[in-house]
Amino acid sequence: MITNTNPAEGMRDLSPKEVELRNYVTGIITESYKKFGFAQIDTPCVERINFLTSGDGGDNEKMLFKILKRGDKLNLSEASKEQDLVDLGLRYDLTVPLCRFYANNRTKLPQHFKVIQVGSVWRAERPQKGRYRQFTQCDIDIIGTSGVIAEIQLILATAAALQQLSFTNFTVRINDRRVLESFAAYCGFEESSFGKVFVILDKLDKIGIDGVQNELQKSGFPDSSVNKFIEIVKEAANTKLTVETIAKLLPNIPENVLSDLKQVIETISGQSNNLYSIKLDLSLVRGMGYYTGQIFEIGIDGFGSSIAGGGRYDKMIGKILNGKEDIPACGFSIGFERVVAILEERQFKVSNLSNKVALLYDSDLLSFDFLLSEAQRIRNEGAVVSIELHNKKNTKKQLDNLTEQGFTAFGIYHNGMLVVLKDLQSKI
Amino acid sequence: MITNTNPAEGMRDLSPKEVELRNYVTGIITESYKKFGFAQIDTPCVERINFLTSGDGGDNEKMLFKILKRGDKLNLSEASKEQDLVDLGLRYDLTVPLCRFYANNRTKLPQHFKVIQVGSVWRAERPQKGRYRQFTQCDIDIIGTSGVIAEIQLILATAAALQQLSFTNFTVRINDRRVLESFAAYCGFEESSFGKVFVILDKLDKIGIDGVQNELQKSGFPDSSVNKFIEIVKEAANTKLTVETIAKLLPNIPENVLSDLKQVIETISGQSNNLYSIKLDLSLVRGMGYYTGQIFEIGIDGFGSSIAGGGRYDKMIGKILNGKEDIPACGFSIGFERVVAILEERQFKVSNLSNKVALLYDSDLLSFDFLLSEAQRIRNEGAVVSIELHNKKNTKKQLDNLTEQGFTAFGIYHNGMLVVLKDLQSKI
Repeated sequence: MITNTNPAEGMRDLSPKEVELRNYVTGIITESYKKFGFAQIDTPCVERINFLTSGDGGDNEKMLFKILKRGDKLNLSEASKEQDLVDLGLRYDLTVPLCRFYANNRTKLPQHFKVIQVGSVWRAERPQKGRYRQFTQCDIDIIGTSGVIAEIQLILATAAALQQLSFTNFTVRINDRRVLESFAAYCGFEESSFGKVFVILDKLDKIGIDGVQNELQKSGFPDSSVNKFIEIVKEAANTKLTVETIAKLLPNIPENVLSDLKQVIETISGQSNNLYSIKLDLSLVRGMGYYTGQIFEIGIDGFGSSIAGGGRYDKMIGKILNGKEDIPACGFSIGFERVVAILEERQFKVSNLSNKVALLYDSDLLSFDFLLSEAQRIRNEGAVVSIELHNKKNTKKQLDNLTEQGFTAFGIYHNGMLVVLKDLQSKI
Repeated sequence: MITNTNPAEGMRDLSPKEVELRNYVTGIITESYKKFGFAQIDTPCVERINFLTSGDGGDNEKMLFKILKRGDKLNLSEASKEQDLVDLGLRYDLTVPLCRFYANNRTKLPQHFKVIQVGSVWRAERPQKGRYRQFTQCDIDIIGTSGVIAEIQLILATAAALQQLSFTNFTVRINDRRVLESFAAYCGFEESSFGKVFVILDKLDKIGIDGVQNELQKSGFPDSSVNKFIEIVKEAANTKLTVETIAKLLPNIPENVLSDLKQVIETISGQSNNLYSIKLDLSLVRGMGYYTGQIFEIGIDGFGSSIAGGGRYDKMIGKILNGKEDIPACGFSIGFERVVAILEERQFKVSNLSNKVALLYDSDLLSFDFLLSEAQRIRNEGAVVSIELHNKKNTKKQLDNLTEQGFTAFGIYHNGMLVVLKDLQSKI
């Protein structure tokens, strides 16, 4: 006897209603991506441990679920540290496995590889409301394309998928890691401290501009750099930021970075039919250190965190392959769990095209032949048909429960005949 | 730099073609099951370790991937055995998690719960051709129904799903654990050795009747029991086995067991329209010890192992709940990986309803606006449209590669116009 039948800590069971919505959302997203020429692949949930602890995962590597070695490989008495005990781990994102997949298969793959991934990932985060240790990610990536047509296609495909899910009026925020680097350099920060400066800037939404200033000061950066930095953050917040205005604020941004941003912003604006917008955001950082170029995020009004995020990461695959060559790569990930949570909040209902018919039978029924044949006949006309034992003591309660499960028509099998209880006549 | 970019041992990457087929198969199976009134749930891939080592998993428990404790819970210096180090594991099947799910949620669930599960499971088997350490299972179960209408619905729904996948002329083999128990008792084996006898009988397909006799003798069972047992196995193999003939061979089978078998066999025969058959098989054992009643398996000609298997397990949920009450439960699982392997062997092609159009552009293109608008226009008419950089040095090779990826129509964007390369005119 097991007393605790809850799912493991931070994990969750999903009810039929939840699975239906989730399957609907992944279906819409993948269909929408496929329309743009992306193809779906899959990688194992389990990867070798050295691959998941190479540093590319940032903080996610600290939340790794590690898998114990098995059989002869496990030598408990001689193990002195964690690394001696484990050889595998559960993936914490889909980008790191994708890079391994590409490195392993690239001779067989198209030169410009447009790829969809939908799958579970695991992070041993501190359990909290709405955050789970197993969750689904939906990513698209384009590998092998260095030009901004990659960014443009990713943004268009992601925006199209979100529109299919009835999200409207959202804003794509865009920035470039090289803009951030120019920004930090312009203010006189040393290159070795850029990462730390960006991590603090990334908190702007949460701690406000004074908070950012405080943290920068506490970190021991020169006052002159901090003041210049904060002044520009303020100015950017008070200006309608465009490629032109940002070039004036930060005259050291390379020309090609500006023209690429300009092209993406103008092209997306032109293609969006004013159903969504795109804007430059100097404070957009994106957490992962592996980004090398443009970065983007999609937020919707009234919902704090973003529902999609991504960017260019040209160094990551090369690092796996041979440490020399760059392989251009760019990705965009929909925050699947957030999208589902918002749809649930909005009481979104998955529309079912099929009628759902319940046929009730008596417990003393001797032969199921006629009942089953009738069920199949109705099924062949396109309906869902479920055979259900009749609860004679409380037919009303049973029909209420079945209605709750989505059944819309009911029949009872009695004296060798199907008798209509409710709505059945109109449905069959 | 990581030199080994293969998936972890025994795991595999799945190409777009493989994912497409797998998604098609799970789609067909779940749609088919839903038509019979089953509803899909999902449980986490990770379960608490005590739950995965309770004994119900049989040999699968030996192949468990165990997950290392994290943070303060892990005390490496004081750990003297494996159990001290791990708190979680990867599920090795979907039945054990289902029982936990039911035990945890039963007040909210229908009295007769018809449930679909599709998901990955993990077993650290010795790597071998065609066997992977992560694989997909597709299960249906009916919980709360004690009568054979449960078995009948499971068999009909599974047969319907297989037919939808163009499997025909398959045979459902059926037996009952209580028939096997009567059989062993009739031959004079002691009840405590029934399990061992069944394990040996289960090898009949592989080692033949002489092999079974040998193993029984080597196990030290009395000659009289072994001889009687083998004689009946031979007689059963040479007879057209029916409920009537088996009752003559083994007069100690309880009446209700026989009448239940008779009803299932006759009902399924009547419903199958001669598209598949059902037959009693005295040598059918099914590996798992948790079965308590009827058991069944589906095989197809020319493919050794079965493509579906299941049975009744009335004790398992009660054991989790309180150790007293039985909760009737019965399940049928399609061998998803085998089904996919057979379809691949048959070179089954997923039919795509959408046209797939590739629009090629020059690397010196300055504005993507017109190209993207044209792409969207064609997409709005239902086609998949991919923007592809034109490989001017070898257009033929590029079109061949795109054709290989499933593209059927091609256009090239040139001097501000879409020029037809191949088949495009007829598709847009």
